[in-house]
Amino acid sequence: MIIINTGDGKGKSTAAIGQIIRYLGHGFKICLIYLFKKQNCCGEQSILTRFTNLSIFYFAHQHPYFNNKLQTIDVIAQCHLAMLLLEKLIVSEKIYDVIVLDEFNIALNDKFINEEYFITIIQLLSKKSDIIITGRGAPKKLLSIADLVTEMIEKKHPYSSGILAKRGIEF
Amino acid sequence: MIIINTGDGKGKSTAAIGQIIRYLGHGFKICLIYLFKKQNCCGEQSILTRFTNLSIFYFAHQHPYFNNKLQTIDVIAQCHLAMLLLEKLIVSEKIYDVIVLDEFNIALNDKFINEEYFITIIQLLSKKSDIIITGRGAPKKLLSIADLVTEMIEKKHPYSSGILAKRGIEF
Repeated sequence: MIIINTGDGKGKSTAAIGQIIRYLGHGFKICLIYLFKKQNCCGEQSILTRFTNLSIFYFAHQHPYFNNKLQTIDVIAQCHLAMLLLEKLIVSEKIYDVIVLDEFNIALNDKFINEEYFITIIQLLSKKSDIIITGRGAPKKLLSIADLVTEMIEKKHPYSSGILAKRGIEF
Repeated sequence: MIIINTGDGKGKSTAAIGQIIRYLGHGFKICLIYLFKKQNCCGEQSILTRFTNLSIFYFAHQHPYFNNKLQTIDVIAQCHLAMLLLEKLIVSEKIYDVIVLDEFNIALNDKFINEEYFITIIQLLSKKSDIIITGRGAPKKLLSIADLVTEMIEKKHPYSSGILAKRGIEF
């Protein structure tokens, strides 16, 4: 099954984390691949690393939007490494029940990953594992092959009333 | 801060669970109150019970919609017990950084809990704790006092193509 959490609102990644906790409760084996996030950037990571059934990988630790010193070519190379890991998982004997691809929609939207290539890999992988893909701006073609799509819509956000990002909520 | 996850799509409760994991990673103290869910009904519960910083309570174990033998008056009484717990927390020395009220929007929408009463309690509690409220159909008045509102919208769901509820995804 291919599951997508997209939209401009909150809850895309946190819902995936909640889903991971639910899967872990059932004894499932899970692979979580982060794009654009550094190790220990978010509160959940110190908890998630405790679970032996959960493997976590990090690629492209920051999005160039937040760091103008980053070369796009290096970001693309990092995203490609993430894709090579997915290719490996297709043929690997190691079977994950679930693969969570955090912020991959952004990488697709920004053309850091080729959409056709990604869809091919995901369709092959989804024969072995459930796939959860998060990030705003999921491309239409990807949505068309997904089984379950949720759009998180921001109806009200404290930033607009001047409150700053808060520990535990935003990171 | 008062945070609401509402809408007909998936991810309202799982985003709250993800948020709890994030808060736990920061060492926060959390209280999770479930309505309409039994102990061990969902995969996440066997994981969540491991955290000493997280207190979990269950009230009104089932919604009458799913069990026509349930008396509405008993469900209302159970919801009232949950409200009494919240009242206690307002004056208690025990301070939770975050209180998660799972499916309370449904209880409000179904008039099992009086809206004005709930809003009064929540506004008092929100001076001590962040409050996260989940469930479809959050009432307008509640939305108006919230700081952060996300609507989860179902864009595509496998049920409509005949796939049944799947362990790990729906429960």
